[in-house]
Amino acid sequence: VSDPDQTFGRQPSQIAELGEFGLISRIIGQLPPNPVGVLVGPGDDAAVVLAADGRVVISTDVLVEGTHFRWDWSEARDVGVKAAAANLADIAAMGARATALVVGLVAPADLSVSVIDGLVAGLRDEAALVGAAIVGGDVTAGPCVTLAVTVIGDLEGRTPVLRSGAQVGDLVVLAGRLGWSAAGLALLQSGRDGAGIDLVAAALIAAHRRPEPPYAAGPQLARAGATAMCDVSDGLVADLGHLAEASGVAIALDIDALPSTPGVTFDQVLSGGEDHALVATLRADVPIPAGWREIGVVRAGHGVVEAQSAAPITGPG
Amino acid sequence: VSDPDQTFGRQPSQIAELGEFGLISRIIGQLPPNPVGVLVGPGDDAAVVLAADGRVVISTDVLVEGTHFRWDWSEARDVGVKAAAANLADIAAMGARATALVVGLVAPADLSVSVIDGLVAGLRDEAALVGAAIVGGDVTAGPCVTLAVTVIGDLEGRTPVLRSGAQVGDLVVLAGRLGWSAAGLALLQSGRDGAGIDLVAAALIAAHRRPEPPYAAGPQLARAGATAMCDVSDGLVADLGHLAEASGVAIALDIDALPSTPGVTFDQVLSGGEDHALVATLRADVPIPAGWREIGVVRAGHGVVEAQSAAPITGPG
Repeated sequence: VSDPDQTFGRQPSQIAELGEFGLISRIIGQLPPNPVGVLVGPGDDAAVVLAADGRVVISTDVLVEGTHFRWDWSEARDVGVKAAAANLADIAAMGARATALVVGLVAPADLSVSVIDGLVAGLRDEAALVGAAIVGGDVTAGPCVTLAVTVIGDLEGRTPVLRSGAQVGDLVVLAGRLGWSAAGLALLQSGRDGAGIDLVAAALIAAHRRPEPPYAAGPQLARAGATAMCDVSDGLVADLGHLAEASGVAIALDIDALPSTPGVTFDQVLSGGEDHALVATLRADVPIPAGWREIGVVRAGHGVVEAQSAAPITGPG
Repeated sequence: VSDPDQTFGRQPSQIAELGEFGLISRIIGQLPPNPVGVLVGPGDDAAVVLAADGRVVISTDVLVEGTHFRWDWSEARDVGVKAAAANLADIAAMGARATALVVGLVAPADLSVSVIDGLVAGLRDEAALVGAAIVGGDVTAGPCVTLAVTVIGDLEGRTPVLRSGAQVGDLVVLAGRLGWSAAGLALLQSGRDGAGIDLVAAALIAAHRRPEPPYAAGPQLARAGATAMCDVSDGLVADLGHLAEASGVAIALDIDALPSTPGVTFDQVLSGGEDHALVATLRADVPIPAGWREIGVVRAGHGVVEAQSAAPITGPG
């Protein structure tokens, strides 16, 4: 009982009170035991993770306070979920299964410990959805909260699904939501949160705070023979534009086949990012797996065009 | 010739002029071709790297402007070197060889493009020292420059060398510099830079700006049978304290065996971090490989003590 704060059961309220090593211990204490496949977990110079197929998939995404999230619009747990989701979706878009994450966390010294707890819970629980674990990290002082997440994954013997493999005649298919996050953000920006909002608005705001990428759909479509795939983080037209350019083809979108959601505008469907839907191309003779819908076809040419008119679609806004 | 700036050969001076995708293209353009072992390099949702031994070592470290570096004391290239070095040393300390890095880069929109070029050059060239490549990243806007680097590595069939494996009777061995970076920082803090400084001061300041961790010494000592290892990033006494605690032993330091460097105080040797020396333990009957020096012995007990007097050593300052 050498710490008088402990005697009275007082919890530290700011991370500066914990110090770097105290903060690291606290974070590690909130993680579950290392799953099978994590050979060395947090606490050493580095972690060691099984890479059973002899290759490792790796991607990184950074979320910055003020740029990617605001504390008046998101709780800490939501931000943790969002940071994990952006990374986990990139692994899914390669047709792989995420196995482990490391987290670089920058925070001001006066940040509430409860914010750290929330961030860790969001990261941990979102990772757990796909069976991945947080295996290491770094915490350091800085002017605003920044989460730099890196995720690694396992292709389980499959060929990675790149953006560059789309072939003329392939179908274009979609899994996941389009424009929900953008619509939710627009509601928050217009001050339409709090008591009295309707169910649709509440669902869209929730979708902005906690995206729900279709993680399992990535490996599923890779197994079915996807020729190209990417996640929608910049907006459907922008990301299909990247895929079209990488593949040297045109993507012809069937506008009528795009999902229609109450409260979500057509512009938000075309240009909203952050839902981390997956878009992919698939040979036309392959049955479309459950959870995926056909939204277009791959043609010769370039860019993203409207299937009926062949007019170029440029992301609005 | 659609861009009038290009017509007159004008280079963009701020990263905002390039935009996100222009900036990414510029960075990728400064990287060498993918080495063998990088199956998918930058530009897709994720990279794919060979993990030949069926396991992957992973570590992350974040450097923040104002916390870890200052632009009046370091050039951009130095900061890139430093960010890579901190990460590469962690992989070496596991007895592994680094294979690939991903870099999360946060920067204000008005940052000079030349700073980005310098950061990339430093990261790229330091990684190349060990045969590792930058395989992906993320760039985003934020209030201060932040580099979040994650590195993965290959154990090449070896057992990872943890902090927890030291045994009573083992020798304590050191590779690399102690206190150089701290001494260089002290010179910078006292304004002793610029014309007229002596060779020793110049070397110490250079060591602060660009650490030179003994990367090859990590795998070398793992092959020789190291029982425990870590890199010195918090200071010799602090890091040996972590190793002693993880192993449940005491580390008895032979003070006279510690390296002595002109311009570096004894306190800086004991408590200076950032040189990323490697410290390790080795069975006493194993010949000490070239490049390593004996600095103590593992005893029963706890903490870091002075070998002759058995008095506890606490990091000064």
